[in-house]
Amino acid sequence: MNAKTGHQSGWAQLSASNVFIEFIDTTLRGCAQVMFQNNPLTGLFFFIAIFVGAYGEGNPAVAYGCVLGTVVATLTGLTMRDRKSWRSGLYGYNGCLVGAALPTFLVVTPVVWACIVLGSIVSVIVMVCIADILKTWKVAALTAPFVLTTWMILLASYAFSGLQSSGLPAPALPHQLMLETSAAAGGNIFVSMFNGVSQVFLFSSLIGGILFIIGLAVESLWAAVFALGGSLLALFTAIFLGANPSSIDVGLYAFSAVLTAIALGSTFNKPSWRVLAYTIVGVIFTVIVQGALNIFLAPVGIPTLTMPFVLASWLFLVPNKEVMPAHRQ
Amino acid sequence: MNAKTGHQSGWAQLSASNVFIEFIDTTLRGCAQVMFQNNPLTGLFFFIAIFVGAYGEGNPAVAYGCVLGTVVATLTGLTMRDRKSWRSGLYGYNGCLVGAALPTFLVVTPVVWACIVLGSIVSVIVMVCIADILKTWKVAALTAPFVLTTWMILLASYAFSGLQSSGLPAPALPHQLMLETSAAAGGNIFVSMFNGVSQVFLFSSLIGGILFIIGLAVESLWAAVFALGGSLLALFTAIFLGANPSSIDVGLYAFSAVLTAIALGSTFNKPSWRVLAYTIVGVIFTVIVQGALNIFLAPVGIPTLTMPFVLASWLFLVPNKEVMPAHRQ
Amino acid sequence: MNAKTGHQSGWAQLSASNVFIEFIDTTLRGCAQVMFQNNPLTGLFFFIAIFVGAYGEGNPAVAYGCVLGTVVATLTGLTMRDRKSWRSGLYGYNGCLVGAALPTFLVVTPVVWACIVLGSIVSVIVMVCIADILKTWKVAALTAPFVLTTWMILLASYAFSGLQSSGLPAPALPHQLMLETSAAAGGNIFVSMFNGVSQVFLFSSLIGGILFIIGLAVESLWAAVFALGGSLLALFTAIFLGANPSSIDVGLYAFSAVLTAIALGSTFNKPSWRVLAYTIVGVIFTVIVQGALNIFLAPVGIPTLTMPFVLASWLFLVPNKEVMPAHRQ
Repeated sequence: MNAKTGHQSGWAQLSASNVFIEFIDTTLRGCAQVMFQNNPLTGLFFFIAIFVGAYGEGNPAVAYGCVLGTVVATLTGLTMRDRKSWRSGLYGYNGCLVGAALPTFLVVTPVVWACIVLGSIVSVIVMVCIADILKTWKVAALTAPFVLTTWMILLASYAFSGLQSSGLPAPALPHQLMLETSAAAGGNIFVSMFNGVSQVFLFSSLIGGILFIIGLAVESLWAAVFALGGSLLALFTAIFLGANPSSIDVGLYAFSAVLTAIALGSTFNKPSWRVLAYTIVGVIFTVIVQGALNIFLAPVGIPTLTMPFVLASWLFLVPNKEVMPAHRQ
Repeated sequence: MNAKTGHQSGWAQLSASNVFIEFIDTTLRGCAQVMFQNNPLTGLFFFIAIFVGAYGEGNPAVAYGCVLGTVVATLTGLTMRDRKSWRSGLYGYNGCLVGAALPTFLVVTPVVWACIVLGSIVSVIVMVCIADILKTWKVAALTAPFVLTTWMILLASYAFSGLQSSGLPAPALPHQLMLETSAAAGGNIFVSMFNGVSQVFLFSSLIGGILFIIGLAVESLWAAVFALGGSLLALFTAIFLGANPSSIDVGLYAFSAVLTAIALGSTFNKPSWRVLAYTIVGVIFTVIVQGALNIFLAPVGIPTLTMPFVLASWLFLVPNKEVMPAHRQ
Repeated sequence: MNAKTGHQSGWAQLSASNVFIEFIDTTLRGCAQVMFQNNPLTGLFFFIAIFVGAYGEGNPAVAYGCVLGTVVATLTGLTMRDRKSWRSGLYGYNGCLVGAALPTFLVVTPVVWACIVLGSIVSVIVMVCIADILKTWKVAALTAPFVLTTWMILLASYAFSGLQSSGLPAPALPHQLMLETSAAAGGNIFVSMFNGVSQVFLFSSLIGGILFIIGLAVESLWAAVFALGGSLLALFTAIFLGANPSSIDVGLYAFSAVLTAIALGSTFNKPSWRVLAYTIVGVIFTVIVQGALNIFLAPVGIPTLTMPFVLASWLFLVPNKEVMPAHRQ
């Protein structure tokens, strides 16, 4: 603890005295803010997890896209007036996710790298726009800037021959899911739980998931606990509702719930029994929104990204002061 | 009149002295608020109409779902701070509609009953969320919480094998409606008008419609008049535009217009010639929005529910103070 | 210059003294406001351009629809309280576009003329509604009232046999665009650039485009410069991304960008290098949003209209004060 504080202080001193180190520190915080943490060490763990996951899935461009997106977005953020938000990494995290998402779903070409740069710049503008709109109701933009910017580029990929899909779901009309009895969820709950955490960055990896949890715990134990708890509860909800077993196994019904759990349980509320109950309802509803958005977007062939988390969390955060007695007095 | 007032007073005294009676009174008001009335007797007529209609269509689960949804939502509302809204039934009506909608469109299973409970709880949170957002422009949430919550569950039913459709429209691309001359609207205008009223609760029933109108008249004669007038005007608009005759007959082009007419004509404005003109434009436009939303949702296979009413009424209520001279001085 | 000022003054005097002339003046301003200009002479040039374009495409109903829509919307605007907005033509421009759009996409029948009248009336209500909502963030409604009103009627055309499509895109699931090498963009860049300008009113015409630019220059040289520059940049962006060459040629990737360029570059900001950079990013992003919305709306078979401009411009205008240092001091 002492050692860690000492390390942080040393790094903090360096950051304060050297503009280049300050920029690296802010970029690391940008990555950590994907899961709401304002801590460069958390960001370092996250970046390591991303490289582990990206190389593990044989698509290293995802990791380099992440770095590029975070750097470009952090640079763009320098042109904004609000230096405190910039220093906390709040302009970086959406670019980080844009950089992870585009190489995941599109064939990696120079046009895609150009789109990562453009998308990261635009994500900062969207961030300021949404934050400005939502401050009327004291709610954060969450990952909405990432989702909206990336949706635009992924939708546009169908219209432009310069952008070719490598992993987008084929556009199709929804049809009722019928489960064969043989197709029962066969995955390991423990592995699926960590897959759910790593799917926040669009890949499934046990080691990646563990590294994300360690990164969270560095800054906030409660965040780590709620992330794992949220993932587990989402798994059980998806199994109860009868979701596609292979989607459950790779964490596709859990990643939005992980973020909802961290947001409702530890970031925007102090843990309490009442908050726990509220978070449980929020996580279960996030799983339903995940299923609903999967279907809603099926005809246009794009993934939900973290929109189920954004919608469910906005929904539960706006009434916060009405629901939580003597909230944050 | 005297007798009625006496009856109300007796009941009001009972409600004030007994927590259990107060809860029943609030639950009845919750049902009445589906059509904007704050009156337990109206709610009683509505519940009777719902049972008549549900048994008439051979699907009693709709009526029991209604009761369950209203009770759960009213109970959930107890945890909110705003007691006045709770006492007026404003936390109950969305749960009432969630409970009516799910058994109408899904095969009734234990999972669906669980979804009614969850959906009714969530509808209260959505209610507080939307009301909080919209109070910036002094507009009510209307039935948007019901629609959004139910849309999520109905969309999700395609993704989860635990939820099976019994009456959802099959997902399909829209195609131009061509009317054969033989298929002219053959229904009885009188019956269709009352069907339009009862379709607010998702079934078509002459007796049900009449009971709803009586329930309205108990609290507000104007509301009853605008409900019937709105239904009639919507019928003629749909016939003029050439809508599907069987949809017209069962009231599917009228139910949203009924609510628009009550809202614009009697609830949020005092009746006047200017208000009448405004309401007529609003009702006609609601029919167009009804057709538009039917098409927009066709590819994802879910019904519009009362969203055409919500959209058209928000649209016409926000500019109210700009349009109505010396409004409510 | 002197002569023009003199002419304006004479006309201004006439407008001030004669209610009928004042109404014509306001109607002309309504047409000019489609491209943000508050000038009756600009409106006159625009109307001439519309007649040239409409007769050129063999569909004169578009031009008469434009006149009818602007007149009806301006008349409707008379019932609103805000006389200054009325006098600037701010209630007219959405009706003008509704009147252009409906005969472009629907078989011209008496029902369509009725829909132009209804749509123009409703466009004023939508205008007041959206303006009221957006003033919370000091952003204008732009052409959103036109788009939303027209989308409703075009969507509804699939549901009503009284409205038949003449030019709506057939509803279809998106599929990846594959370019054959032979299909390279073969159009004349110069012509395409002016086509892009005239497509703001939904037709492509070199002479029409030139007349629109002259009309803009009458009121604001910067607006004319940004309109042409925006069109050119959009063309190059669409070619770079590999859009459909024939769509590029007729200006379908440029018209929204033209409006974004005028709005960001000259209407809501004073030209500067910083504003120029911001506008360039905005125009490029508008092209991506254009591709994205084309795909998003494909399953329901309606055109984007100017929504890509509206979305991109809202996005870039809300953060304006955060991005522009000492903005409009």
